[in-house]
Amino acid sequence: MAILEILKDYTELRDLSREDISALAGELRERITSVVLKNGGHLASSLGAVELILSLLRSFDPAEDRILFDVGHQAYAYKLLTGRLDRFDTLRQWGGVSGFPRRRESSFDHFDAGHSSTSLSAALGFAKARDVLGKKHHVVAVIGDASLLNGLAFEALNYTRESRTKVIYVLNDNTMSISPRVGGMATHLARLSSSSAYNWLKKAIKDSCASLPRGQALENVLGKMKDHIKTIVKPVNIFDEMDINYWGPFDGHNTEELENVFELAKKYDRPVLLHVVTVKGKGSEEAEKDPTAFHGVSPARPKEPCETGRKSWSEIAAGIVLGMAEKDSRIVCLTAAMKCGSRLDEFASRFPDRFFDVGIAEGHMVTMAAGMAAGGLKPVVFVYSTFLQRAMDQVVHDVCMQNLPVTFAVDRAGLVGEDGETHQGLFDIPWSRPVPNLVMTAPRDEEALRSLFLFAGKHEGPVMIRFPRGTAVPCLKKGNSLVTPPAPDMLKPEILETGSEWALIGYGKTVELMLRARETARSRGISPLPGVVDLRCLKPLPEHDLQKILASHSFVVVAEDGYSAGGAGEAIAALARGMGERNTAVVSVTGVPDIFVPQGTIREQEEYCGLTPGKVVNRFVEFQKRAYRQAARI
Amino acid sequence: MAILEILKDYTELRDLSREDISALAGELRERITSVVLKNGGHLASSLGAVELILSLLRSFDPAEDRILFDVGHQAYAYKLLTGRLDRFDTLRQWGGVSGFPRRRESSFDHFDAGHSSTSLSAALGFAKARDVLGKKHHVVAVIGDASLLNGLAFEALNYTRESRTKVIYVLNDNTMSISPRVGGMATHLARLSSSSAYNWLKKAIKDSCASLPRGQALENVLGKMKDHIKTIVKPVNIFDEMDINYWGPFDGHNTEELENVFELAKKYDRPVLLHVVTVKGKGSEEAEKDPTAFHGVSPARPKEPCETGRKSWSEIAAGIVLGMAEKDSRIVCLTAAMKCGSRLDEFASRFPDRFFDVGIAEGHMVTMAAGMAAGGLKPVVFVYSTFLQRAMDQVVHDVCMQNLPVTFAVDRAGLVGEDGETHQGLFDIPWSRPVPNLVMTAPRDEEALRSLFLFAGKHEGPVMIRFPRGTAVPCLKKGNSLVTPPAPDMLKPEILETGSEWALIGYGKTVELMLRARETARSRGISPLPGVVDLRCLKPLPEHDLQKILASHSFVVVAEDGYSAGGAGEAIAALARGMGERNTAVVSVTGVPDIFVPQGTIREQEEYCGLTPGKVVNRFVEFQKRAYRQAARI
Repeated sequence: MAILEILKDYTELRDLSREDISALAGELRERITSVVLKNGGHLASSLGAVELILSLLRSFDPAEDRILFDVGHQAYAYKLLTGRLDRFDTLRQWGGVSGFPRRRESSFDHFDAGHSSTSLSAALGFAKARDVLGKKHHVVAVIGDASLLNGLAFEALNYTRESRTKVIYVLNDNTMSISPRVGGMATHLARLSSSSAYNWLKKAIKDSCASLPRGQALENVLGKMKDHIKTIVKPVNIFDEMDINYWGPFDGHNTEELENVFELAKKYDRPVLLHVVTVKGKGSEEAEKDPTAFHGVSPARPKEPCETGRKSWSEIAAGIVLGMAEKDSRIVCLTAAMKCGSRLDEFASRFPDRFFDVGIAEGHMVTMAAGMAAGGLKPVVFVYSTFLQRAMDQVVHDVCMQNLPVTFAVDRAGLVGEDGETHQGLFDIPWSRPVPNLVMTAPRDEEALRSLFLFAGKHEGPVMIRFPRGTAVPCLKKGNSLVTPPAPDMLKPEILETGSEWALIGYGKTVELMLRARETARSRGISPLPGVVDLRCLKPLPEHDLQKILASHSFVVVAEDGYSAGGAGEAIAALARGMGERNTAVVSVTGVPDIFVPQGTIREQEEYCGLTPGKVVNRFVEFQKRAYRQAARI
Repeated sequence: MAILEILKDYTELRDLSREDISALAGELRERITSVVLKNGGHLASSLGAVELILSLLRSFDPAEDRILFDVGHQAYAYKLLTGRLDRFDTLRQWGGVSGFPRRRESSFDHFDAGHSSTSLSAALGFAKARDVLGKKHHVVAVIGDASLLNGLAFEALNYTRESRTKVIYVLNDNTMSISPRVGGMATHLARLSSSSAYNWLKKAIKDSCASLPRGQALENVLGKMKDHIKTIVKPVNIFDEMDINYWGPFDGHNTEELENVFELAKKYDRPVLLHVVTVKGKGSEEAEKDPTAFHGVSPARPKEPCETGRKSWSEIAAGIVLGMAEKDSRIVCLTAAMKCGSRLDEFASRFPDRFFDVGIAEGHMVTMAAGMAAGGLKPVVFVYSTFLQRAMDQVVHDVCMQNLPVTFAVDRAGLVGEDGETHQGLFDIPWSRPVPNLVMTAPRDEEALRSLFLFAGKHEGPVMIRFPRGTAVPCLKKGNSLVTPPAPDMLKPEILETGSEWALIGYGKTVELMLRARETARSRGISPLPGVVDLRCLKPLPEHDLQKILASHSFVVVAEDGYSAGGAGEAIAALARGMGERNTAVVSVTGVPDIFVPQGTIREQEEYCGLTPGKVVNRFVEFQKRAYRQAARI
């Protein structure tokens, strides 16, 4: 019988033999692989961290100690060992186990994660809380080498000395970001990880442990270390320079070595960084060979019929920009560690000198793009909506305040599915809408995407083009057998269907929703049928055209592809409700309500938020009922 | 006659003798001091950078080369020497010279700044633009030691090697942040600046320059250096570890030394960081002694009468939190290098173990606060609205997504005056309003501020309390001889004045605006007089109470203390214009329009934005006229 099945809980891990631990590691890998291949998820990094997590749970007690996983997608083994074995097959599904640490999921998940590089700051916070409250437990942050290269992690490293507290940082170094990592610091880490200067420490631990009772042995090593650490232990390194004790490198798949080091770190009275070298994808031949491909795995489910033959928005966008770059040598591309996700491989190999993968460093990417634009280039920043939140200030100050021609290709805007709360692209419209000089647009199909990139390439200021996760149709209207009206200006609303009494306004992805709502109204026999409008430009709002629509309809529904609060719908309502406009349309806004939207398929999330054709139509039905009632009263 | 007056432009600087340069430095200091003491501004850092700027302008040509000043408030001498001498006495005034680099002010200002740590990223952008466009000029970034400790600067340092381009970073190290700088990296810099390992380089330059023609001499030194730099030049340092050549420390007040080093750096073919040590406040005895007090200087103008005896919002807020901390040992305070500005000196000395100044590291501060809250503390984050933009993602993910009890004391919200565009606090409402779990409030006076902090102290989730720059009255209503209605709930709107037909809704600072508008209406003989409502809570919006107000008035004005787009006014309009509510009030939103608001006094900025009592009243007059016209037509 499998050890994983008979294990009551993680506390029993301490009683297992090395042999059993090794067998258990195999079982964990098997379970992770089978579920991830079915449900999708982060395979390679989770496979690489199995022994590390086993050793952490043998050396620390997560009921007392705080263990924080950076990003958190490497912690599947931790989930399996801390009470989530029986429901692990619901990983990343609606109502199921999250792909990231979640406090509300388990008391052993101490800090929610999703975006990178938060764990060191959070660990310092936990450690100071412990000190102020007079408690004694350990605080451990497990951070990957790519996450360590982000500015947020650096700020925490810099503050570590100042915080005068004890924390244990475990640098889980698999020598990879999602793609191979970049930068001077990465080279530094590579030098460290191949260094052998710490062999004396490993040997000391081993010798000591062999001959003495464990506690006493560690005291010995510790005593020796305190005297000598600054003089003997010396691969020159950045951490020691910042007054954080650096120990390593250690073999992240050798549980005995890891546990000895953890015991030592527990007894040590100062902040320490343990450099642990692991193999991304460990135990899976395929994943070890191509960890980038196995970083994120898509769920193995039949393609939905409507999607057959469609290309992804990312792929189309990258292709358009590649085409533009062939003609205009000023066009350059930037990404923050999302070369694959943004489908920029071809651009990178075609124009290596005009392609910039800065690593997980969104703020730097945006400010560098601003510098490029001020220097005469036409930068295109490829970034997911959720990650652009990291660079809001840089978008406002460095790009928009100077009115620089930077194009933002904002990918994964709106609901994103299985990654859940932390990866939804729901904030970009509210925070961008008030930014002066910015033009913010949302294409409904491939044709519009192409027009918008061409517009952006000519525009003398910043342009955001936001598009969703998933696939796009070449032409939404043709696909629906509609007549295409002439489009004199990409920034004006386009009437896709005429109607009377009520109109449906969408943009980007919600244009399709509105077209489907009209079909639903038709199939339910509702008369008259509504007009359907593609807003196209969210900022600046095309007020003049909207006023005409508002004046000629009694009821207008605006469907947001994001939060209702701060979206275009409220702005349209304010336009309707402004000075003297008492006789214009009632405006009903439908969008994501005031919640963090949990994981699931995008369709499940849309249902949950009420973003369905049926519910759009119901709003009109309600409006009509109410109007009849009011009329009857009069 | 003063050299400054006879100098035609910066190109003539090269012809001046060392003696003249020294005299000119004195003249620049005099001019800077006299204008700053009159207009307010950043004195100490600008005094410290005078020789550095003289040497930069003798060694580089800003018509070709790109010189970027980080933050930019140290660059007053640069402004004086590049065409802004005659209007420098308009510094920081409406329509005058900006206190920061501004591209639209001068073609010699190459990149706008204001927030810290952008210059290295921007420099890399300019350098890559140069490379791609086949140009040859130099790119120089001048960054202070405090700015270098921010994560954004680290991301740029990390990317420098990868960018495969040539940039010159000048680290202007005055060993100070606004307050003394913090962190392990700071200690590292201190070690470097006291090192003498680079003396050989200085000597080599000197000897070489004495005996040989200049160009040839430098080639000699350069040749020698290329061979030896990795072995001879060795104070161990972080920059070398990241593959950025570190040269220094140099005396930042010795123009000869600086210019020799700049010449060398120009000829060198790899990225280089020049460590220049300066004295903050150099040349002013007072400013050298207390550079923190002379960092930012307020304009010397008579206090406005209404302000007499009032305390600043910052001072009151800090006092309230200090009082709470006396009673609750879980309350801790955080600031990002704004201890003085946020008036936290007393808290820091009273509770040194519960006070955290993290340096210029807003992202880290917010995530650490989240860790503290998850660990059982009650952190209060003191931060200016404009700087909190740097930590939007951390507010959303690390605090609000986990619904952690962190209180944000958001200072300098709204228009801030002389610092201008980059420091306005106008975005916080639009980007915060859609964030689930967050409670966002704005007190109108000291009494409300106190109640809100007490509320936040008990609330089991995140609370933002936003307040403006300037002074607060103890009780706004008593100060206006109004009757105080009972306030059952701090999160519900409060009716301060009853009225009929029209109502004025404000929050925070705009409550006073609305009370003054009512008085203006009275003095203009307008009847009826409007009701005045303090909204108090921006998020969640008190919909039920607002609906009552909307149903009982024909015309409602909402005055934003921020951008109109994405503010509370649009949300109230959407409420009025929502499902079936055709017969509620016309909602007129007045707020900051779609522009970056330039420097000036706050009053000038309010005038510019139309946020005056007269203009609020005019909206009602317009509404009435239109209503009469419509009635006449019918």
